[in-house]
Amino acid sequence: MRPRSSIITLLTDFGVADYFVPAVKGVIVSINPAARIIDLTHDIPPQDVTAGAFTLGACYREFPEGTIHVAVVDPGVGSARRPIIIETADYSFIGPDNGLFSFIHQFERDVRVHSLTNEEYFRHPVCATFHGRDIFAPVAAHHSLGVPDAEFGERVIDPVSFDIPQPKHDAERGTIEATILYVDRFGNLITGFTERELQLNDGEKPAAEMILGGRRITQFGSHFAAVAQRGDLFAYPGSAGYWEIALWCGSAAEHLGARSGDRVILEIK
Amino acid sequence: MRPRSSIITLLTDFGVADYFVPAVKGVIVSINPAARIIDLTHDIPPQDVTAGAFTLGACYREFPEGTIHVAVVDPGVGSARRPIIIETADYSFIGPDNGLFSFIHQFERDVRVHSLTNEEYFRHPVCATFHGRDIFAPVAAHHSLGVPDAEFGERVIDPVSFDIPQPKHDAERGTIEATILYVDRFGNLITGFTERELQLNDGEKPAAEMILGGRRITQFGSHFAAVAQRGDLFAYPGSAGYWEIALWCGSAAEHLGARSGDRVILEIK
Amino acid sequence: MRPRSSIITLLTDFGVADYFVPAVKGVIVSINPAARIIDLTHDIPPQDVTAGAFTLGACYREFPEGTIHVAVVDPGVGSARRPIIIETADYSFIGPDNGLFSFIHQFERDVRVHSLTNEEYFRHPVCATFHGRDIFAPVAAHHSLGVPDAEFGERVIDPVSFDIPQPKHDAERGTIEATILYVDRFGNLITGFTERELQLNDGEKPAAEMILGGRRITQFGSHFAAVAQRGDLFAYPGSAGYWEIALWCGSAAEHLGARSGDRVILEIK
Repeated sequence: MRPRSSIITLLTDFGVADYFVPAVKGVIVSINPAARIIDLTHDIPPQDVTAGAFTLGACYREFPEGTIHVAVVDPGVGSARRPIIIETADYSFIGPDNGLFSFIHQFERDVRVHSLTNEEYFRHPVCATFHGRDIFAPVAAHHSLGVPDAEFGERVIDPVSFDIPQPKHDAERGTIEATILYVDRFGNLITGFTERELQLNDGEKPAAEMILGGRRITQFGSHFAAVAQRGDLFAYPGSAGYWEIALWCGSAAEHLGARSGDRVILEIK
Repeated sequence: MRPRSSIITLLTDFGVADYFVPAVKGVIVSINPAARIIDLTHDIPPQDVTAGAFTLGACYREFPEGTIHVAVVDPGVGSARRPIIIETADYSFIGPDNGLFSFIHQFERDVRVHSLTNEEYFRHPVCATFHGRDIFAPVAAHHSLGVPDAEFGERVIDPVSFDIPQPKHDAERGTIEATILYVDRFGNLITGFTERELQLNDGEKPAAEMILGGRRITQFGSHFAAVAQRGDLFAYPGSAGYWEIALWCGSAAEHLGARSGDRVILEIK
Repeated sequence: MRPRSSIITLLTDFGVADYFVPAVKGVIVSINPAARIIDLTHDIPPQDVTAGAFTLGACYREFPEGTIHVAVVDPGVGSARRPIIIETADYSFIGPDNGLFSFIHQFERDVRVHSLTNEEYFRHPVCATFHGRDIFAPVAAHHSLGVPDAEFGERVIDPVSFDIPQPKHDAERGTIEATILYVDRFGNLITGFTERELQLNDGEKPAAEMILGGRRITQFGSHFAAVAQRGDLFAYPGSAGYWEIALWCGSAAEHLGARSGDRVILEIK
């Protein structure tokens, strides 16, 4: 068995004002007092599975081998959607089978999925609106104690995963099309472009432009201070591995009226 | 002595933007470096003792035996209200004697209360506006190291506890009356009705209706997806042990103009 | 070498909705699995170095000897501003050299500063917009494992520190002038006056008044309940060591249209 780090992370849309998050934590430490709980975030917009998937994808790899990532953005809680556990080479993921782990499926090669049906590992009674506390938390805690994934339920061969739009090259026009994957709290727009589409060579301005919502972004740089003046739009290689579009001293999302899912064009010259 | 879990939880209305919460945590780990601090929440609406009491009551039992729960929603800080420590069979509670522990008094049988007057266990100087840092935090830390409750001050026989409105049966009309105990951040209304008043039998629609603010709620179910369409009001057994009223894809509280303390009627047919 | 507490605190303006904070934590626990991470706050207003400096200054001393405080409010990230580590008698501080540690320089006597240039201790590749994850977090983790400050880079003899306005006495008029240092989330105004300027003697009303924005504050006390009625302005010795101005049941900042940096006068009679 893989070494366990005893770290359990939590990503939810529960917010931190109510009793939901501490209830989840209490269940975990009651089962495994040595578990170390680290919050990813609890401020995923309510029921926004796509935002949850992106956020998880952007940071899960920073954690040590053996970390168990619990993610609960779960509009279908209580319905037929399956609760699952995913094992990859380095990590475990526990949550609803609704696409929340789509970036895991994109980034990881060997992915093994089991459903969570063995009620022996649940908190009882199971409340139909709070699987976070009654299914995902206790399963994560038992898993951190060494219970293997196959013990929790039967194998799943068709986990739900939504397509993460990949950049599309148009050789004729010399353009590449992608979508906005995420908007962060500063209003920065994370595009689908990576260094495969465009590299930044030591601060040299690349011969490229981005087009979004009818506006051209012509400034490129490695960081804010290098390129921009107050009110300027510019693009830079962001920390999640994607090119981002920002407005110096403002919200690019608001300024451009742009949001997650919007089309963005990269024009290489 | 009861085994100690070395877990100290914190529930406050301090918010997390200022230096208040980290100051409390610093004091605790300075006294007991092995203490494990878990946030319940710091977003209780400012000075809303009732909301703090409900939230604490809804999750304290998820924690392991020996957990010390520190709760500070304290409009009277610095005044004559007593700082107290409460011991129950499984837990300790530390905070102001202002009703914040009312649900503990409702749920627990053997409750022993002492005031906190032994200044030996305070942080000095004690600031009259920050007993969280200067009294409750150091007392909790010393308690987690084994200092017994009676060491902190004299016995209290009349702790403040407000009445939690219990459902009232009207046999003639066949109705039960309760109040809204809490509104969560999604706008779901937590009523005072429990499974004692109404059971949900395997998804079978109960022959009952709820009336709130002149509106009838006729849909009942175990979870959101089972019963509701966008814009529907419905009732379900919530995860805190009470029936809740929700609006599918919206805020029931806003839709109904309802809030904590409002009267709600259950009509059994 | 100083004993290490293995506590690493974090103060940032990242917010808690995105992947920034968990990425920082993942990097730390990947390098030092025994590190204990405690959040000071992640809700410093974006790029508000002054607010970050105040908040850090108001609570860092509550933590045990050996605590490593990581602070990242960093408008100049990626530019020429230096990343630094500061050692004082009891603590280490890691972050950008932009004035964020001004209160440390004010409060501490022996301060030794080194820049962070030894890339051996960075996460690679270093993203120009996320030194929190790629420089400050790994350096803090290595430091908590015993790597001494001088190992991270060359000595810095001119760290950036902004002047914290000190109260100015005007002997002729019998007044003292200071500024508002900070406004907390309740709208309380933290002034630059300390007990050196004015002492509160056991609840006795001091013969003094404060003037702010043309308004006179004549009520003084040790805590809210002692002095004020709904709608009253009053001053009290705050928990950060400064006199504060509050509005009972309201926001003094809003009521007075006051903010950080505003001039406030203390008139001793």
